[in-house]
Amino acid sequence: MSEQKFTRIKNFINGEWIEETGVEYVPLYNPSTGEAIGEVPLSSEETSLAAVDSSYEAYKEWRALSLSKRMGYLFSMRQAMVDNQEELAVSIAIDQAKHISEARGEVRRVIEIIEAACSIPTLIQGETLDGIAKNINGRVVKQPLGVFGGVAPFNFPALVFGWFIPYAIGVGNTFIFKPSTQSPLFMQKMGDLFNEIGLPKGVINIVHGNRSIPGTWYEHPKMSGVCLVGSTPTAKKMAEACGRGGKRSMLLGGAKNYLVAMEDVNWDLFIENFIHSCYGSAGQRCLAGSIVAAVPEIYDELIERVVEASKKVTVGDAMDPDIYMGPVISAKAKASIENYIKIGIEEGSKLVLDGRNPELPDNNKNGYFVGPTVFTDVTPCRTIAKEEIFGPVVSIMKIRDIDDALQLIREQKFGNGACIFTQNQYYTEKFISEADAGMVGVNVGVCAPHPYLPFGGIKDSHLGTDKVQGKDGIDFFTQNKIATVRVAPPAGVADKRENKDTDKSVRSCVAQ
Amino acid sequence: MSEQKFTRIKNFINGEWIEETGVEYVPLYNPSTGEAIGEVPLSSEETSLAAVDSSYEAYKEWRALSLSKRMGYLFSMRQAMVDNQEELAVSIAIDQAKHISEARGEVRRVIEIIEAACSIPTLIQGETLDGIAKNINGRVVKQPLGVFGGVAPFNFPALVFGWFIPYAIGVGNTFIFKPSTQSPLFMQKMGDLFNEIGLPKGVINIVHGNRSIPGTWYEHPKMSGVCLVGSTPTAKKMAEACGRGGKRSMLLGGAKNYLVAMEDVNWDLFIENFIHSCYGSAGQRCLAGSIVAAVPEIYDELIERVVEASKKVTVGDAMDPDIYMGPVISAKAKASIENYIKIGIEEGSKLVLDGRNPELPDNNKNGYFVGPTVFTDVTPCRTIAKEEIFGPVVSIMKIRDIDDALQLIREQKFGNGACIFTQNQYYTEKFISEADAGMVGVNVGVCAPHPYLPFGGIKDSHLGTDKVQGKDGIDFFTQNKIATVRVAPPAGVADKRENKDTDKSVRSCVAQ
Amino acid sequence: MSEQKFTRIKNFINGEWIEETGVEYVPLYNPSTGEAIGEVPLSSEETSLAAVDSSYEAYKEWRALSLSKRMGYLFSMRQAMVDNQEELAVSIAIDQAKHISEARGEVRRVIEIIEAACSIPTLIQGETLDGIAKNINGRVVKQPLGVFGGVAPFNFPALVFGWFIPYAIGVGNTFIFKPSTQSPLFMQKMGDLFNEIGLPKGVINIVHGNRSIPGTWYEHPKMSGVCLVGSTPTAKKMAEACGRGGKRSMLLGGAKNYLVAMEDVNWDLFIENFIHSCYGSAGQRCLAGSIVAAVPEIYDELIERVVEASKKVTVGDAMDPDIYMGPVISAKAKASIENYIKIGIEEGSKLVLDGRNPELPDNNKNGYFVGPTVFTDVTPCRTIAKEEIFGPVVSIMKIRDIDDALQLIREQKFGNGACIFTQNQYYTEKFISEADAGMVGVNVGVCAPHPYLPFGGIKDSHLGTDKVQGKDGIDFFTQNKIATVRVAPPAGVADKRENKDTDKSVRSCVAQ
Amino acid sequence: MSEQKFTRIKNFINGEWIEETGVEYVPLYNPSTGEAIGEVPLSSEETSLAAVDSSYEAYKEWRALSLSKRMGYLFSMRQAMVDNQEELAVSIAIDQAKHISEARGEVRRVIEIIEAACSIPTLIQGETLDGIAKNINGRVVKQPLGVFGGVAPFNFPALVFGWFIPYAIGVGNTFIFKPSTQSPLFMQKMGDLFNEIGLPKGVINIVHGNRSIPGTWYEHPKMSGVCLVGSTPTAKKMAEACGRGGKRSMLLGGAKNYLVAMEDVNWDLFIENFIHSCYGSAGQRCLAGSIVAAVPEIYDELIERVVEASKKVTVGDAMDPDIYMGPVISAKAKASIENYIKIGIEEGSKLVLDGRNPELPDNNKNGYFVGPTVFTDVTPCRTIAKEEIFGPVVSIMKIRDIDDALQLIREQKFGNGACIFTQNQYYTEKFISEADAGMVGVNVGVCAPHPYLPFGGIKDSHLGTDKVQGKDGIDFFTQNKIATVRVAPPAGVADKRENKDTDKSVRSCVAQ
Repeated sequence: MSEQKFTRIKNFINGEWIEETGVEYVPLYNPSTGEAIGEVPLSSEETSLAAVDSSYEAYKEWRALSLSKRMGYLFSMRQAMVDNQEELAVSIAIDQAKHISEARGEVRRVIEIIEAACSIPTLIQGETLDGIAKNINGRVVKQPLGVFGGVAPFNFPALVFGWFIPYAIGVGNTFIFKPSTQSPLFMQKMGDLFNEIGLPKGVINIVHGNRSIPGTWYEHPKMSGVCLVGSTPTAKKMAEACGRGGKRSMLLGGAKNYLVAMEDVNWDLFIENFIHSCYGSAGQRCLAGSIVAAVPEIYDELIERVVEASKKVTVGDAMDPDIYMGPVISAKAKASIENYIKIGIEEGSKLVLDGRNPELPDNNKNGYFVGPTVFTDVTPCRTIAKEEIFGPVVSIMKIRDIDDALQLIREQKFGNGACIFTQNQYYTEKFISEADAGMVGVNVGVCAPHPYLPFGGIKDSHLGTDKVQGKDGIDFFTQNKIATVRVAPPAGVADKRENKDTDKSVRSCVAQ
Repeated sequence: MSEQKFTRIKNFINGEWIEETGVEYVPLYNPSTGEAIGEVPLSSEETSLAAVDSSYEAYKEWRALSLSKRMGYLFSMRQAMVDNQEELAVSIAIDQAKHISEARGEVRRVIEIIEAACSIPTLIQGETLDGIAKNINGRVVKQPLGVFGGVAPFNFPALVFGWFIPYAIGVGNTFIFKPSTQSPLFMQKMGDLFNEIGLPKGVINIVHGNRSIPGTWYEHPKMSGVCLVGSTPTAKKMAEACGRGGKRSMLLGGAKNYLVAMEDVNWDLFIENFIHSCYGSAGQRCLAGSIVAAVPEIYDELIERVVEASKKVTVGDAMDPDIYMGPVISAKAKASIENYIKIGIEEGSKLVLDGRNPELPDNNKNGYFVGPTVFTDVTPCRTIAKEEIFGPVVSIMKIRDIDDALQLIREQKFGNGACIFTQNQYYTEKFISEADAGMVGVNVGVCAPHPYLPFGGIKDSHLGTDKVQGKDGIDFFTQNKIATVRVAPPAGVADKRENKDTDKSVRSCVAQ
Repeated sequence: MSEQKFTRIKNFINGEWIEETGVEYVPLYNPSTGEAIGEVPLSSEETSLAAVDSSYEAYKEWRALSLSKRMGYLFSMRQAMVDNQEELAVSIAIDQAKHISEARGEVRRVIEIIEAACSIPTLIQGETLDGIAKNINGRVVKQPLGVFGGVAPFNFPALVFGWFIPYAIGVGNTFIFKPSTQSPLFMQKMGDLFNEIGLPKGVINIVHGNRSIPGTWYEHPKMSGVCLVGSTPTAKKMAEACGRGGKRSMLLGGAKNYLVAMEDVNWDLFIENFIHSCYGSAGQRCLAGSIVAAVPEIYDELIERVVEASKKVTVGDAMDPDIYMGPVISAKAKASIENYIKIGIEEGSKLVLDGRNPELPDNNKNGYFVGPTVFTDVTPCRTIAKEEIFGPVVSIMKIRDIDDALQLIREQKFGNGACIFTQNQYYTEKFISEADAGMVGVNVGVCAPHPYLPFGGIKDSHLGTDKVQGKDGIDFFTQNKIATVRVAPPAGVADKRENKDTDKSVRSCVAQ
Repeated sequence: MSEQKFTRIKNFINGEWIEETGVEYVPLYNPSTGEAIGEVPLSSEETSLAAVDSSYEAYKEWRALSLSKRMGYLFSMRQAMVDNQEELAVSIAIDQAKHISEARGEVRRVIEIIEAACSIPTLIQGETLDGIAKNINGRVVKQPLGVFGGVAPFNFPALVFGWFIPYAIGVGNTFIFKPSTQSPLFMQKMGDLFNEIGLPKGVINIVHGNRSIPGTWYEHPKMSGVCLVGSTPTAKKMAEACGRGGKRSMLLGGAKNYLVAMEDVNWDLFIENFIHSCYGSAGQRCLAGSIVAAVPEIYDELIERVVEASKKVTVGDAMDPDIYMGPVISAKAKASIENYIKIGIEEGSKLVLDGRNPELPDNNKNGYFVGPTVFTDVTPCRTIAKEEIFGPVVSIMKIRDIDDALQLIREQKFGNGACIFTQNQYYTEKFISEADAGMVGVNVGVCAPHPYLPFGGIKDSHLGTDKVQGKDGIDFFTQNKIATVRVAPPAGVADKRENKDTDKSVRSCVAQ
């Protein structure tokens, strides 16, 4: 299905596609077929530093552009993506092997993020406060900081671009982006679009490689901050390095998300959302459902319905419109997931649906596939209940009541998403208020907020105070500068207002 | 003048004053006289952990209180401080030896901060967005995180309390505060007031000690974040530790602030503000003026006026109403400042006013005094032009023009405050826009924003994205939780609106 | 019970209590006993104009005060009310004859409104936007307008003061207040408190009288706007007059509020809230429940429960702690309510509980009492279902389903409040989204928002765009001024940034 | 130059172009040539009512659309205008005879307004506030109201469309637009674009006619509000009618704008902006400079420079690229302006440049032209200093100082715009703070805020509380609905939190 030509991935530096030489290249596969479709450079530190220099130089002019001109580039970028959306989606369906229907959804979502970022002129407004004291006014202005660097995971090559870059550059920063070496194709196309819309050189640079790339950023005087979507251990290491180097950081880590089903669950709604949540993207996303927790009244029926629905999920090539679920990203990922299944069995959970070795179309025999897998009778301390599996493996757990569910969510180290399925208003509000996660959903399986609102977890799922998108995006990518302005009349011009409030026994610690 | 009785400082844990036993105590001096007036415990890690437990337990009920009840405590705290302001001010004038008139100003400023924090019910409001998709609404709520710890410097025992605690607890967190061992008296009084207003036990705990106290916080599962006002190296170490431990951090570091005088300077305004900025608090504050940069047209006149005015600054006991400037905090601080003066001379700057060994009243012969000190012909690479001296030492520098000044400010590592003295509108706006500091002032010497607006620097003067006070305070002490809510009609109730937008070829990555 | 001395009500003009002479006085009664307890002047237009002049003069200094000083008066006013709350409550329980327990609630609510108004320094902040074009910045500042006048209804002598005045004066306006001639006592006490806290003279003036008082405002060049809580016809006349005179207006009119009970109603919650909503303040409030609409499944049970609970409501003196419901405001009001009951019967609704001629304690035989009254089988077109009765008369109506309820609410001319009683999430969200009223409640009987949020209806219940309290209060009482500021370097100072965007074929309609 | 074919203007109702029959048509002229180029129907009330019905029906589906879909139409509308901008600009240059370079600017400005309106998803977010009391949350949602009608003046056929419609429909209302009968061509093109982008029928209707069109709106139950840009007397009449009918109104009236020149004026900047301000659009705009007020130090030089520059302004066909200033709108407008010139002379002002009977190209001999006209020695009470002339007539006035200027501005009835030319920071801030106008400019001649910020005057220049554009646009076109939600646990589910705050002696006036 995929007759992808072999691609040697290039870096995009200062507006030009540059082939990296003298370094190792790692192969790029189509996970649906196992076919090698390209290779990706592990770029040198020199290249990374060249990108830093480029972005730093570009910053000077870019931040001085009027806001409406910078916004003009976002309007153009949106239009260019609209015009190229199928090609962009296919690029994701090939190397990341996200099913084409979901790949289209991802590209459309990035377009929506850019649309949401068109609120920047509102969000970036600072504050004024007059008459703080005689002839003294205060003002807050929100300004860009400089150059930011960002590291993307394999699973959302487009979305993570959307989370970082439109807000970063819209407010006046420049950006260096390191895509995952497992899904670089999307940004190869985007670089072309940047040139097509005439984006000034260096405003966005793209460098491929491993962790030595961000390694050049933490202490670099020309860098202002670092963004990551990745694992929690990586996030913590980056937070540490950024702390040492005095850089801002916004670092999204791992997750383990509960779907809680109450006694009044609407079954159709639940099953539809369960499938989407647990098997969409083959379970490889930070908001995938991973644990289904049900109250006793419905526990048995839930298992029956979940297994029945899971069996109907078709597995195969990500480009096949008749298929629901594509492969996982790599042979290594497949092995890791299968190992978790083995552990699950060993620790005593009941495997009621085994996705190992699913039946596959001939073309996909060499792809990296794991089918829908369901465990029941899982208890909270089991490995599969605590660790992020990042595959289509579901653990079903019995809970006593909503308080039980809330306690389990509170006690786990991650805090990305949590969803409840109920029709009751009290459960709804209690869950929203008390579920200890950054994002909560009610009767939805994937509780990703619309781009008009911020996105992000808490606890080990997110390091830093600001989430991505919306007001949070502005807070992270700008700094507040506060001005205190006293005006005095020119010599010879009397100031007619008089200051009657002077008490010599008190000296203010500020302007008065 | 000060007949302070000898005080053995206690910790305030879970609403009770507890005397620490079995640990070292360090002496507490009155810097105006050199007299030992008390002793301060270097509390044990056990004590610190007891405070953590207390605050963690208190959090559960405190966060569940209705907002208006929590705000009620802030209104009461404000009133209690108003009723006790002179006693609070004296406590600062004794141990920190801030001049009593400035100590009164500091207490009054904290009252203003609490008044500003009465905006919490407005600032803490989250967002709603209806109709994101059919039957789907979005909501953002701002929630507290848990327990925060804060470390104060010696120089603002009251102000730093004000920066951290009203916002932290107003939004529903609890707090552990470590005052400086050099200025603990203010919080001793405050603890009494907390009990007087009936603040629930454990909402605020006070623990005295050294860096082993915050050392217990970074990896502690019951802690949510750490605040500091201190030095930049300490701030960076804390940022690193917080990154490793996954804690929020808001860390204010050092400073080196320019006062820029343009050719149209209003002399009276400038000199009045210069004195206040450079010699207020004996130069021991993060917004003290440290470098005076003047354009050639006025350079000579400025030196003449500055020296003349500096000579008139009286030095003596912090409690003496006829005195302008009190001592520095300690013998060690005095030695450090004198050493900088020595380096200044050695590196070739011209010492035109020497504050070493100032004349002193008899009672103050043993106090830690340095008088107003002025260097001229200072160049940007000199030590005294780059490092924070934290004393009444001024460096005068000649600059070509405003661009020159802006470049010097941009190139230094700190970015706390920067002030300009001019009557010109272009200089004003250019300086506000381009001075690379978190706070800028126009015709003011200390560019501290009014508490209605955020306070904080950039670059090495501030680690973290949020400043203190106002909206920034809310951002730091709360976390956004985003809810995505789909409602479905009960069984048997038809939903009259129909979803006409279903395109099978696209699967959204979010709820639709 | 009330040994109220006879009071001759005075005007409060320019900080002084002035006895109005040469005009008619109307008697003031205690509605619980029918006893005349004072008299109220129908002040002359000259007096009204003197108040306008006083407030206009006071405005000049008041608006120029620093914001923190103005806020200081609000903090003091709050404290003075806290210290005098029982006396204030009694004043309301006497002349308006609101039950003392509710009168206390009203005073406490005003204190909460002032606490909410302490957010003014946050809410009044304007906006800044830099870099709109080369060297051009934009700024929005929110400024006061001048003198506002306000007219209060009899039923909330304290609350309406709270709605208008703290926000009006906090942002820098001055205010003329006309209390109801039927409940003037509360403001007599407040005037004393204004002087006690040292509020500058003329910032608040109080004038008693009839509609000739506001009649002097509409075209007066010294007046900026008019506020009313009253009837809809009065509101529309005022809106017309304000339109003609070019004045701002915020005019709250009548109401007719539904309580909708769904099949899953929680009975205890419903009955408790029903009693409070329909019989609190003897039904004389704009958020009183007036129609109970129930679905067929529970219609009969609801009637039974409502009647049973209504019978238990005790009627008597507003100062008697053992009584639930006090009198209505006047003999005229009593007659009007009794006439509605007569019409109800005549039009065919079924009177299942008749509150006319309730049993009363001896002392209250001459008071103006109507007891709880319940009609069933009411249909939407009946007079009692459409007009505001303003008394303890309830109409019970059968509805098919939630859509039926929503349509009834949509079709009525008023749009103040609407409440639903349900535990279902879908009903909850649908009602919030679609109930065509300015305020909606879920499982509450009186859907008054907390003072942190705006208060006000829509349709005929509210004329004007801004509600009272919170952000709306700021919008109404301030005007946005937008500044566009271009700066140019002084002669001889080169501007280093260059404008590269000049296209001669386009001339902008604004600064560029 | 203009070979415009004769156009019979049609109404655009429910997505279709409808030719009005059986009514009077008024001629449409090209003011540059005096040539009749079309005719415009004075549509019947039936037609107007048909538009109301169409918009009312369209509202039901339009408001129920998801926000992102409605925003999608704005993105499409922007793109359609970008693609057709020259044709749109020409339409304005023909019938309104705005010079083509300014017509292009006007169209571009409308595109910018739509870009600014892309912030609607941020601006329309309501508020949440949890934990107001036990189990009680508050929520504010911003909802559309229904159908709005708007009336445009001749001078900004595109801009006024931009002010009203993108915000009105973006938030969910529908709109009926009545263009000026003197400049209907722009909207004829826009209607085509609405269909091109697939805007649902009835969301925007266009009806041509006289004041009988809005006359059908004021009391119509299907209408929610009325907008106007027009004269102050019309605005006041509409305000009155809307008050009577209970409709929202946002009504922009007349203006008389000062340009104040201080002693430190930058001459080049001033003259460039003066020309643009006073002669752009031939002075026919609400932000046109009309009075130049100068301090004595520069008064004579200013006259000299102003006259010299005014003489260079070329007058002729609006389509001629070599011309600066086109004609005024009509023969009647020309006569009115010439009459003001006559009055100016009669009242004693000195006519130093007479624009009557300017030299014209042959093709334009029949156009409606008045050339640049300058009076000096004008005093504030003269007719030409007080009334809006709406033509290229400038009055120069001597003032003592800035306070003098501020007083003149304060005393006039209009309050649209006011500009100052200075380089001094004190004058700048004082003018921004004290100039009694809704919009102020510093070193700009036309102080129109960028569309990211609100636009509008005060006093007689604006009736209503909300301005156009930005946050104000949202406030006007939405209504706040406030929800108070109490949740209670389902039967059998214990609520673990307990309410400890119950004081029987106080009954709250709200939910507790």
